[in-house]
Amino acid sequence: MVKVGVVGYGTIGQRLADGVALQKDMELVGVADVSPTLAVRALKEKGMPYDFYNALPENQKLFDDAGIKVSGTLEDLVQKVDIILDATSAGVGAKNKEIYAKYNKKAVFQGGEKNSVADVFFHGYANYEKGIGKQFLKLTSCNTTGLIRAVDCLDREIGVEKVAITIIRRVADPGDYHRGLTNALQLEKAPSHQALDLMTIMPHINATGILVHTPVTHGHIITVVATPKRKTNKEEVLGFFRKHPRIRVVSLAEGFLGNASLFKYARDLGNPRGDMYEIAVWEDSIVESGNDIMFAINIPQEAVVIPENMDAIRAAMEMQTDRLEAVAKTNEYLGMGKWMQK
Amino acid sequence: MVKVGVVGYGTIGQRLADGVALQKDMELVGVADVSPTLAVRALKEKGMPYDFYNALPENQKLFDDAGIKVSGTLEDLVQKVDIILDATSAGVGAKNKEIYAKYNKKAVFQGGEKNSVADVFFHGYANYEKGIGKQFLKLTSCNTTGLIRAVDCLDREIGVEKVAITIIRRVADPGDYHRGLTNALQLEKAPSHQALDLMTIMPHINATGILVHTPVTHGHIITVVATPKRKTNKEEVLGFFRKHPRIRVVSLAEGFLGNASLFKYARDLGNPRGDMYEIAVWEDSIVESGNDIMFAINIPQEAVVIPENMDAIRAAMEMQTDRLEAVAKTNEYLGMGKWMQK
Amino acid sequence: MVKVGVVGYGTIGQRLADGVALQKDMELVGVADVSPTLAVRALKEKGMPYDFYNALPENQKLFDDAGIKVSGTLEDLVQKVDIILDATSAGVGAKNKEIYAKYNKKAVFQGGEKNSVADVFFHGYANYEKGIGKQFLKLTSCNTTGLIRAVDCLDREIGVEKVAITIIRRVADPGDYHRGLTNALQLEKAPSHQALDLMTIMPHINATGILVHTPVTHGHIITVVATPKRKTNKEEVLGFFRKHPRIRVVSLAEGFLGNASLFKYARDLGNPRGDMYEIAVWEDSIVESGNDIMFAINIPQEAVVIPENMDAIRAAMEMQTDRLEAVAKTNEYLGMGKWMQK
Amino acid sequence: MVKVGVVGYGTIGQRLADGVALQKDMELVGVADVSPTLAVRALKEKGMPYDFYNALPENQKLFDDAGIKVSGTLEDLVQKVDIILDATSAGVGAKNKEIYAKYNKKAVFQGGEKNSVADVFFHGYANYEKGIGKQFLKLTSCNTTGLIRAVDCLDREIGVEKVAITIIRRVADPGDYHRGLTNALQLEKAPSHQALDLMTIMPHINATGILVHTPVTHGHIITVVATPKRKTNKEEVLGFFRKHPRIRVVSLAEGFLGNASLFKYARDLGNPRGDMYEIAVWEDSIVESGNDIMFAINIPQEAVVIPENMDAIRAAMEMQTDRLEAVAKTNEYLGMGKWMQK
Repeated sequence: MVKVGVVGYGTIGQRLADGVALQKDMELVGVADVSPTLAVRALKEKGMPYDFYNALPENQKLFDDAGIKVSGTLEDLVQKVDIILDATSAGVGAKNKEIYAKYNKKAVFQGGEKNSVADVFFHGYANYEKGIGKQFLKLTSCNTTGLIRAVDCLDREIGVEKVAITIIRRVADPGDYHRGLTNALQLEKAPSHQALDLMTIMPHINATGILVHTPVTHGHIITVVATPKRKTNKEEVLGFFRKHPRIRVVSLAEGFLGNASLFKYARDLGNPRGDMYEIAVWEDSIVESGNDIMFAINIPQEAVVIPENMDAIRAAMEMQTDRLEAVAKTNEYLGMGKWMQK
Repeated sequence: MVKVGVVGYGTIGQRLADGVALQKDMELVGVADVSPTLAVRALKEKGMPYDFYNALPENQKLFDDAGIKVSGTLEDLVQKVDIILDATSAGVGAKNKEIYAKYNKKAVFQGGEKNSVADVFFHGYANYEKGIGKQFLKLTSCNTTGLIRAVDCLDREIGVEKVAITIIRRVADPGDYHRGLTNALQLEKAPSHQALDLMTIMPHINATGILVHTPVTHGHIITVVATPKRKTNKEEVLGFFRKHPRIRVVSLAEGFLGNASLFKYARDLGNPRGDMYEIAVWEDSIVESGNDIMFAINIPQEAVVIPENMDAIRAAMEMQTDRLEAVAKTNEYLGMGKWMQK
Repeated sequence: MVKVGVVGYGTIGQRLADGVALQKDMELVGVADVSPTLAVRALKEKGMPYDFYNALPENQKLFDDAGIKVSGTLEDLVQKVDIILDATSAGVGAKNKEIYAKYNKKAVFQGGEKNSVADVFFHGYANYEKGIGKQFLKLTSCNTTGLIRAVDCLDREIGVEKVAITIIRRVADPGDYHRGLTNALQLEKAPSHQALDLMTIMPHINATGILVHTPVTHGHIITVVATPKRKTNKEEVLGFFRKHPRIRVVSLAEGFLGNASLFKYARDLGNPRGDMYEIAVWEDSIVESGNDIMFAINIPQEAVVIPENMDAIRAAMEMQTDRLEAVAKTNEYLGMGKWMQK
Repeated sequence: MVKVGVVGYGTIGQRLADGVALQKDMELVGVADVSPTLAVRALKEKGMPYDFYNALPENQKLFDDAGIKVSGTLEDLVQKVDIILDATSAGVGAKNKEIYAKYNKKAVFQGGEKNSVADVFFHGYANYEKGIGKQFLKLTSCNTTGLIRAVDCLDREIGVEKVAITIIRRVADPGDYHRGLTNALQLEKAPSHQALDLMTIMPHINATGILVHTPVTHGHIITVVATPKRKTNKEEVLGFFRKHPRIRVVSLAEGFLGNASLFKYARDLGNPRGDMYEIAVWEDSIVESGNDIMFAINIPQEAVVIPENMDAIRAAMEMQTDRLEAVAKTNEYLGMGKWMQK
């Protein structure tokens, strides 16, 4: 059993902890954060299913006042585990790395950190082999993770030369009050970092794109114009996507009208927190543009990176050395692809 | 074991079914709807935890095409149960009532139906006794249900003469595409129906109010200016609210900044669908205005009526004849008030 | 002086009337609508700068009660003019056409009507010649009008083979309460009608695309992936756009962060109603994707079609037979391209 | 002619400048700001109708690069005027005050500054006399300004003992990208500062209230529960409001459905920037609550304070010593109350 700790118990950290708890070959030792946030208070109200470690000793009184049981410090947690999933705010991970290094532990950082924090920029499906045995890995961000799933899927089937993407980005998560946008679309300087990140992971593909923030909270939508190495068509592409356990093919006729339908569906499924690990591709969105193929995917930003983080543990800890065996284990424990049996 | 059927498997119907399934003295026989909506498709993907009945025979092919197992017609379901919870669209319940009457079954209708559909307009805490043994009950709507909880709480303690409310209403549920509002506040003609409904349930109180729709999906906020029968103060009122198992007292300092924080917290708690049965009162909102007391409550519109629907079954079926025994059973099975033990 | 009437005094109709009033070689005879809307009430409060005609006689009492001076019926207006701009709700124009035909008058319909209502589907810059002398013209919709401006600009310079577009669509206009979307992105079946419409106007170009509705009111953003007939680059494309009097090149550094910045700027300019006739291209959005060029444009949906409607009058009435002379007249009277002198 | 300068050319500053330019007994000498914002760039595109002064000399190159003509420094402007309207960001006014004092000039600060910056906290209708001849005045914020108009109107007619308000606040202005809220209502600690501010201006009234931020941009809505000194009723109160030149009585039947309708109507009126100086009261919102009267008002946050700022100049400069003569002059030049002649 690989022993895992989660540092930073926010939107991503909570879901990482839940994901690890589902892996039968991993043990979640505990989670750490710096203050009694709502997520930590919820942990208490649930009866502390996960041990909690205080990463900021001077805040101990805040935890005491809130009646939250603290099992130790960040260093205590680090010493007890084999590997850390660091989901702290951007930049904090780089500082925490010193502690991980001090105890010679492995760590997986999230997309907000700089690439230089890690030995390898990692994606479970696209470059699993590069992560094997490494000490420090950095995951792609939510948009890039989901985007690469789709592009890698096509690339392995028919080869992809280039992609031009438009990211219609949700601007905040449900419950966020520290950021927001009201009645406005906001453009970022092109090319978007997601396109550049894709090229870092998949250097043989030329990628560019434009990102526009929109005032919604339930999932990004990305349109992809992909130039394959050979002519393809809608039916063939649909077939590729349908076989992928981390991609759900949906349609308007079923009632999937947009990002909010997918969030609703995940809630209706009874998924914890209403989360969804898989990206979705709309059948109705796939069109041909000359030799190019164009389609739209949905990225459930809160949970989409969880599977690839589990893959990262597998690679770093050399739990599996075969890419497909590794992702299959993650998929099995997370219940991914169950919809394919319909 | 009282046998219950749920007709209409939408936002409310799904949650009613889940609520009944949690009552150890009730049995959920099945749910019915008219087409393979996302909620019904989710039922299938979950492996049909509840039997499904097709309320519109001409749509049978749609269910077959979607691979959804149908256990019978609406009349089949009605015959198998003691009582129906009807959560169909406004106006449909009145038609369905003929079927319930035909088989001499009891039924509980939701707030969207006209009062004339039922023998009594019901609220678990405020007028439980009126529902005992009745055949047809109508529940108050989400806003009214939550509002009455708070007003009834004060009224039983110190008496309430009048209330003037401002309803800051969420305009749609997460996942709704058939209604919405974009960058606008919308006023309705005053007095709001919620104030009038409160007076129907609590005729000794003078109530009026103004309702404004706002473009959000996660919970209504109502401000209440209440005139008590005797002078009170913030601390006393807080004490009343803290003792009520369907009211959660929250504060800005804890991180509850608005309706979205409560939705987030319910997700963090791992509540199914991220639902919350209790209303919240903000400690920071309570102020005195002369002899009046003013405060703000949060109404989680999707799930708030579930407890009072369980109460309605208890009253109609005469499972308990004592108000407090009845609501205590509902509260126990739904896990309400657990936060009070902190 | 060509005599013009405007039928339908809503969002587009009001702006058409203002646009005609600015053309020194046209006379606005009057405007017509069917009820005393806010737009009509504003006309009264402004002292009736335009004569008003009642297109629905049975509503005369409503106008009388509101104190609005009515100068006649729809047929009265039609008889007084040379050409009608019909900006009624989709489908109404087709009925009104019978009246226009009865008096042998010309008419210009808007994008909501079916193509069959007209002799030609028209765009001022792209196919002016096809509209010359025609009786019935139909304009492209707001998105298509703006999109064609940009694509036609490139096409006339270096040739365009194909375009793949992503339309990030505003879902309602400011003040709309009859439609809206709340915290959701909504996909439409691809290919979008705007891509198909572009091919009707410019049949030598292969176009496809995906449309996503977003909950905002101040302007659509379209990303365009264009395949030119020869290799080009960002600087060259910028040069093409900068010379076009109906395209404004903007940048993030100047403060144009998104669609809401353009609306704000039009208000700051003191433009009537805060309107903007020109589309905008973000300098920061232009990127190369292999031989393709990708960029983002902003479409101010309320006013963008006004110039092309003026062009349509010029074509139908044969006021100018040369395309560039015609659009130059429109541009001069609307003050378009003033920003180019900076 | 009183010579006026405007310092801070943002949302409020632009409208103050326009307002001063309309006063026939005032002269707008110029406006000042610190960088070439969109508002300043629009000034240039309009041909510099107002002289511009650079309040931050080290930014001179930015203005030169943007081609904006600069007429001097902030101190240059201050020396040329009799009085300054300071509409800078909160806290900057307090620093600028040193310059105004150095040259012994008068100044009017906006609601964002601390009360201590000024000799008097001022409202044109409610306490004009207190501002007469003062050197430094501070205006109430947008919500408080509009609220006081309505409460003062009632108070002068029948006396008001106390008010309990609910502010449904727009969270950002159109075009704002530096703040926003997405799909969330946000509560502030009660009592709201607007209630406290009202009591500073009208110390004989007991006021309290709750403020909730909502994700919209076009106007706040405030519900007021007012306790008058004697029993009144809806018709009487309507009559009071109808006589007030800075209050517009509107109804749902006319089409005024919410804050966005009022913004739309101001645009339809052709008001510069689509601005509205008057608050609105919905006829349909007025209800009686025992002896209390309840109603809803709309506050157009961008322009509502302009009239009271003009009043402030009149008071400080002793242009009129009679309250009603002063506000009548402001109203005449701003065209307020024109709707009353219908």
